[in-house]
Amino acid sequence: MRSDGRDNIQLRPITIEKDFTIHPEGSVLISMGNTKVICSASIEDRVPPFLRGQGKGWITAEYSMLPRATEQRNMRESTKGKVTGRTMEIQRLIGRALRSIIQLEDLGEKTVWIDCDVIQADGGTRTASITGAFIALALALQKSKIENKIKKWPIQDFLAAISVGVDHNHQVLLDLCYEEDSQAEVDMNVVMTGSQQFVELQGTGEEATFTRKQLNELLDAAEAGINQLIEQQKEILGEEITQQILLYKKDDDNCLSK
Amino acid sequence: MRSDGRDNIQLRPITIEKDFTIHPEGSVLISMGNTKVICSASIEDRVPPFLRGQGKGWITAEYSMLPRATEQRNMRESTKGKVTGRTMEIQRLIGRALRSIIQLEDLGEKTVWIDCDVIQADGGTRTASITGAFIALALALQKSKIENKIKKWPIQDFLAAISVGVDHNHQVLLDLCYEEDSQAEVDMNVVMTGSQQFVELQGTGEEATFTRKQLNELLDAAEAGINQLIEQQKEILGEEITQQILLYKKDDDNCLSK
Amino acid sequence: MRSDGRDNIQLRPITIEKDFTIHPEGSVLISMGNTKVICSASIEDRVPPFLRGQGKGWITAEYSMLPRATEQRNMRESTKGKVTGRTMEIQRLIGRALRSIIQLEDLGEKTVWIDCDVIQADGGTRTASITGAFIALALALQKSKIENKIKKWPIQDFLAAISVGVDHNHQVLLDLCYEEDSQAEVDMNVVMTGSQQFVELQGTGEEATFTRKQLNELLDAAEAGINQLIEQQKEILGEEITQQILLYKKDDDNCLSK
Amino acid sequence: MRSDGRDNIQLRPITIEKDFTIHPEGSVLISMGNTKVICSASIEDRVPPFLRGQGKGWITAEYSMLPRATEQRNMRESTKGKVTGRTMEIQRLIGRALRSIIQLEDLGEKTVWIDCDVIQADGGTRTASITGAFIALALALQKSKIENKIKKWPIQDFLAAISVGVDHNHQVLLDLCYEEDSQAEVDMNVVMTGSQQFVELQGTGEEATFTRKQLNELLDAAEAGINQLIEQQKEILGEEITQQILLYKKDDDNCLSK
Amino acid sequence: MRSDGRDNIQLRPITIEKDFTIHPEGSVLISMGNTKVICSASIEDRVPPFLRGQGKGWITAEYSMLPRATEQRNMRESTKGKVTGRTMEIQRLIGRALRSIIQLEDLGEKTVWIDCDVIQADGGTRTASITGAFIALALALQKSKIENKIKKWPIQDFLAAISVGVDHNHQVLLDLCYEEDSQAEVDMNVVMTGSQQFVELQGTGEEATFTRKQLNELLDAAEAGINQLIEQQKEILGEEITQQILLYKKDDDNCLSK
Amino acid sequence: MRSDGRDNIQLRPITIEKDFTIHPEGSVLISMGNTKVICSASIEDRVPPFLRGQGKGWITAEYSMLPRATEQRNMRESTKGKVTGRTMEIQRLIGRALRSIIQLEDLGEKTVWIDCDVIQADGGTRTASITGAFIALALALQKSKIENKIKKWPIQDFLAAISVGVDHNHQVLLDLCYEEDSQAEVDMNVVMTGSQQFVELQGTGEEATFTRKQLNELLDAAEAGINQLIEQQKEILGEEITQQILLYKKDDDNCLSK
Repeated sequence: MRSDGRDNIQLRPITIEKDFTIHPEGSVLISMGNTKVICSASIEDRVPPFLRGQGKGWITAEYSMLPRATEQRNMRESTKGKVTGRTMEIQRLIGRALRSIIQLEDLGEKTVWIDCDVIQADGGTRTASITGAFIALALALQKSKIENKIKKWPIQDFLAAISVGVDHNHQVLLDLCYEEDSQAEVDMNVVMTGSQQFVELQGTGEEATFTRKQLNELLDAAEAGINQLIEQQKEILGEEITQQILLYKKDDDNCLSK
Repeated sequence: MRSDGRDNIQLRPITIEKDFTIHPEGSVLISMGNTKVICSASIEDRVPPFLRGQGKGWITAEYSMLPRATEQRNMRESTKGKVTGRTMEIQRLIGRALRSIIQLEDLGEKTVWIDCDVIQADGGTRTASITGAFIALALALQKSKIENKIKKWPIQDFLAAISVGVDHNHQVLLDLCYEEDSQAEVDMNVVMTGSQQFVELQGTGEEATFTRKQLNELLDAAEAGINQLIEQQKEILGEEITQQILLYKKDDDNCLSK
Repeated sequence: MRSDGRDNIQLRPITIEKDFTIHPEGSVLISMGNTKVICSASIEDRVPPFLRGQGKGWITAEYSMLPRATEQRNMRESTKGKVTGRTMEIQRLIGRALRSIIQLEDLGEKTVWIDCDVIQADGGTRTASITGAFIALALALQKSKIENKIKKWPIQDFLAAISVGVDHNHQVLLDLCYEEDSQAEVDMNVVMTGSQQFVELQGTGEEATFTRKQLNELLDAAEAGINQLIEQQKEILGEEITQQILLYKKDDDNCLSK
Repeated sequence: MRSDGRDNIQLRPITIEKDFTIHPEGSVLISMGNTKVICSASIEDRVPPFLRGQGKGWITAEYSMLPRATEQRNMRESTKGKVTGRTMEIQRLIGRALRSIIQLEDLGEKTVWIDCDVIQADGGTRTASITGAFIALALALQKSKIENKIKKWPIQDFLAAISVGVDHNHQVLLDLCYEEDSQAEVDMNVVMTGSQQFVELQGTGEEATFTRKQLNELLDAAEAGINQLIEQQKEILGEEITQQILLYKKDDDNCLSK
Repeated sequence: MRSDGRDNIQLRPITIEKDFTIHPEGSVLISMGNTKVICSASIEDRVPPFLRGQGKGWITAEYSMLPRATEQRNMRESTKGKVTGRTMEIQRLIGRALRSIIQLEDLGEKTVWIDCDVIQADGGTRTASITGAFIALALALQKSKIENKIKKWPIQDFLAAISVGVDHNHQVLLDLCYEEDSQAEVDMNVVMTGSQQFVELQGTGEEATFTRKQLNELLDAAEAGINQLIEQQKEILGEEITQQILLYKKDDDNCLSK
Repeated sequence: MRSDGRDNIQLRPITIEKDFTIHPEGSVLISMGNTKVICSASIEDRVPPFLRGQGKGWITAEYSMLPRATEQRNMRESTKGKVTGRTMEIQRLIGRALRSIIQLEDLGEKTVWIDCDVIQADGGTRTASITGAFIALALALQKSKIENKIKKWPIQDFLAAISVGVDHNHQVLLDLCYEEDSQAEVDMNVVMTGSQQFVELQGTGEEATFTRKQLNELLDAAEAGINQLIEQQKEILGEEITQQILLYKKDDDNCLSK
């Protein structure tokens, strides 16, 4: 049994607090066990230089941890004067993942800034960031739609992410906490849509390797976890937003992969 | 009357949530109206190079805002690659203020890192940071004392801070929100101890000037506000810590200014 | 008695050399005892982005020390690759102080760059910088006026700054040299106008605290010192510039605080 | 048919020039079609601080492109003053991949620096870097072994990497050139060992998504490509080194995943 | 005799490989003994801000070494976050040297970026860079001329560079390898044109000094070496480009020094 | 005739003020016409890492300009966050030049920091820096000798520097002011010793070239100028220091070039 008593293929308790701060267009505090991330979505009325004049929008993400989000205090990246490789990898992942389910043409020439600030870390901060950021993004776009700032609803599908891994007893685990993660032989982050398609798959043998069979077990576990997360997203977002996302899909099924 | 209906010399509603995150030795979420700051205190078993071998401790502070703590999103300082002048000024102020009520010799060769992370800003973030950081520091040192990691209780007095200002109708205001602050003619931050001594006084005519008479009215208002804040600190910290701080004072009254 | 034989409320000898270098529009070398600062004012025909198109000017300041201005050589900030918090705090203070006595609308869309370069340091470098920079600024603006580059004389009042402090014998001292400053219990910088109004007040208990009574004694001493400094400024600037500043005041008395 | 006439599941022509430069302990120039990378391995007799005194070694990688390796000239990262997120992601990947097939304890307290410098880019630079770096590493370690600088042969298995993707006609392609890569819907980098185990799997829907079925086809293609690359590695490294790697495996089969 | 058996006034073997990489407009790999530099010329259709609207072009150079171009691995400048003084000195020299034989008005509003990337270093990397960069530049401009992208042939003369030095036996040496260079008493880099005029002369007593007589011997040696290098440049560039350069000279002889 | 009425081979008026600031071990203000540089020498009791334990000392130099030393204000390098290539080139030159006439073994394990801060610039700042820094260095070492902090007098010879150039009328000029320098066709900086040996020679055709004959005329002019500068150095330094330098030479003539 796992240190917190969970089954191998069981998520940690999840809570999602909508409108956690007042200024952003969309904002949530997502907790998965002891991992807590403030996700906010800010809409800006212009796009980066490489997109100007194309009528398309952009989604970009930034990720950070408070210095004492972790057991040992980490030096701030602003104090170091540079963003670490790990942070850049994560913020590139979050941005890419969210762009995959957005029709950027529908957004118009706007940039959505996603900020994921980890205030407490216990493993799975990048996947919690994606799952939470999706909700902040949907809330912000719903607000824009109500205020007639976007022409068309741009979210095509739900999106969530989860970590899976193989421990040193060759057990497949879902939603690893920090202690499990630091001892895992294989560590995989999976991002999937509500229609069970992959968006991103990042699997790493941590000074170890893994087989095709293990990969399949990991993916089964991830799929189960993501389905539950998306159910929770629907509940938080409510009927109206959920229907909009699902209807986008029905209308537009053939060009899903664009 | 003020935009939120307060009297001129009235504080905004204050809430202080103890142990807001699990990893730091001391942690609070302090809210003053819509200004919300996570303050944490982390204890490290070594001192900066300039203090090594002197048997004294050190207290240092860092301050940051989430990008969307404000109405307009701000670029992260880690992305800019440098800490702004405003941030440096604030973190130097917080560190200096807290060191004034600590007997650094009692702390032993330890550094306390104070992190003040503003998650929502509506004026007065630096003074809320000091008031909250004092509590986080006291909680962390109480924990250290219980675990026998410090020899002697090092906090000599209570400490809180508040902003005061003069608006364009020449009215003195206590605890300015962002809107008031941005229109004030004079802006002053006052840090005081529980025995009503000044620790720091920073008054600025914002492209304006002020008289000695106005200064005195500002200080009266600040003193009233700080007394209320310190009452609230006592309540949150509880009887045992409060008595320790008060008794330190009684034992040691003559050398208060060291 | 003080180490250099002065009375407690006595300034160090002051010399101010006008037009110390040939290139800037205004330039002085100010010496207060062994503290020597080159202050120059450079006028640029444009304003920072946040002011464009508003018909107003701007004043900004930079402060630096030569590496061997001090007893121990300091590393250059250009070599470190960043400006320290102390430097930023000082240059923000100098700029803010000078803007308080300038009618920025009268300046037109111009930026005045104030450079304060300390070539020898013995305490009070930031206050000497302000006192000297005021003269450099007045000289530069007089030159602009003569060359018809500004429409209206923009300086509303004189401006000077001085340090005061409390030593460990609880004596109030005026114009502290480095040795006194490094041992002071309380350290306060005061910026005042020719009409004896405060522009900036920064008082710090250096790991100590101070009472309201001490504050009043400190302010009395500062006021006395600043009056002498302003007399000296008048002498250096000469009758014509002095009258322009005084007349600005008389014409415009009611809106002094704008 | 593909733009260069290849079949969908066919590698580009590969050439590997051993000992391309004289200074590094191991050095190759690897070409996969028009992609050319200089890979070198440098052995240093110490480890990073976090490993000191543990008797283990370390492998770290750096990756860079010449400014005109690409069709449009890119600014140098040294000129920008910082390493981009893309570069950091790639060098972390290369280091992690190589560490997975090395028994770091056998290496002793040494660091191997892997440098992958792309002198001409046409897609697949990170996978070519891994495939080439493996050879440079093996050459360097063989030299160390001959000179008795390492006690035991530390390479446990072969290692190579390849890119696979899905084009906009839903075709699975092996070893994408730049033009194919920039138009692909799905882009996946696969790192595998000589015993056909996964080390790293990074699949990304580029503003698109992919199914489990597509994933399986991609992995089949990658496996085929990697087997060919490893055959080529064996040929270049020669009988002696190849046998050492294969024998390490046979002796030690059970603890392969450590 | 010298360590590699050369006479004192003898160049190392030179090879120049044209079109070494496919993307740049001009590209060579130049080897002088074990020193190997990839030189590329990239043409951009705009000029730096200080030249805009003047109808003139610009030539700028960047220089870098692969980390393991040298016997000991050097840290990358991108990792350090800054370019060293040595690198800046060299790239300023290369740019200045190439601009001296170009009629920038003939180039039109274009920038030529010269990249000199040392892949193997054994002394004389800056002079090899200049000699090779001249060829890359000529190839790129010939390409531009053929494609009618420049109006007039802008190269006025040939250009090459070589190092000379005085060893500790007071012998004058031509084209020093690294070992000779690191032991030389005097080190001089000479850049000359095909009409035997000086472009740049940088002579340094390395913690030593030199006489006017020694200077003359050094210049004689340099002149001999440069003549040979220019013969080789003519051969590589071929009859057509060579004639264009020589004819530019004949037409325009009087204004050679502009 | 030249713009300031000088003959072609005539220096500008020189003044050298000894002990210009009180803190450095050696300090001068040198003026050559309108070019004014504060040169200071600071002695530190340790050497850089690469020299530790070898019993030798080191001399290193830093160079900077006040922002308004020039006709147009320049941005501070500390504000830019990096030192420009020009500055690095100059400070490397100054350090190298001074090391050439110092017996570093005699210095013992000390570092001399030379700071050259240009407070007013009108051409020739780098050569004035060298000429002034030599005096500051000699004053600092004399002080060290008197205080018995160095065992043996380490200065072997006098050292001065001057600029020469060719104007667009093909006239050779000595000691160019800024206006002349910016229009010169050839610009050369020459550093020589009191025994008329070269230490450094840097000649540049500014988008032009020069002949061997012109080189010889330039060197004749430089030699004449340097002889005068060294006479002035002797006068300022006085009989005792001058004799020490000259006697070092006589005792040790054969090993002058070490």
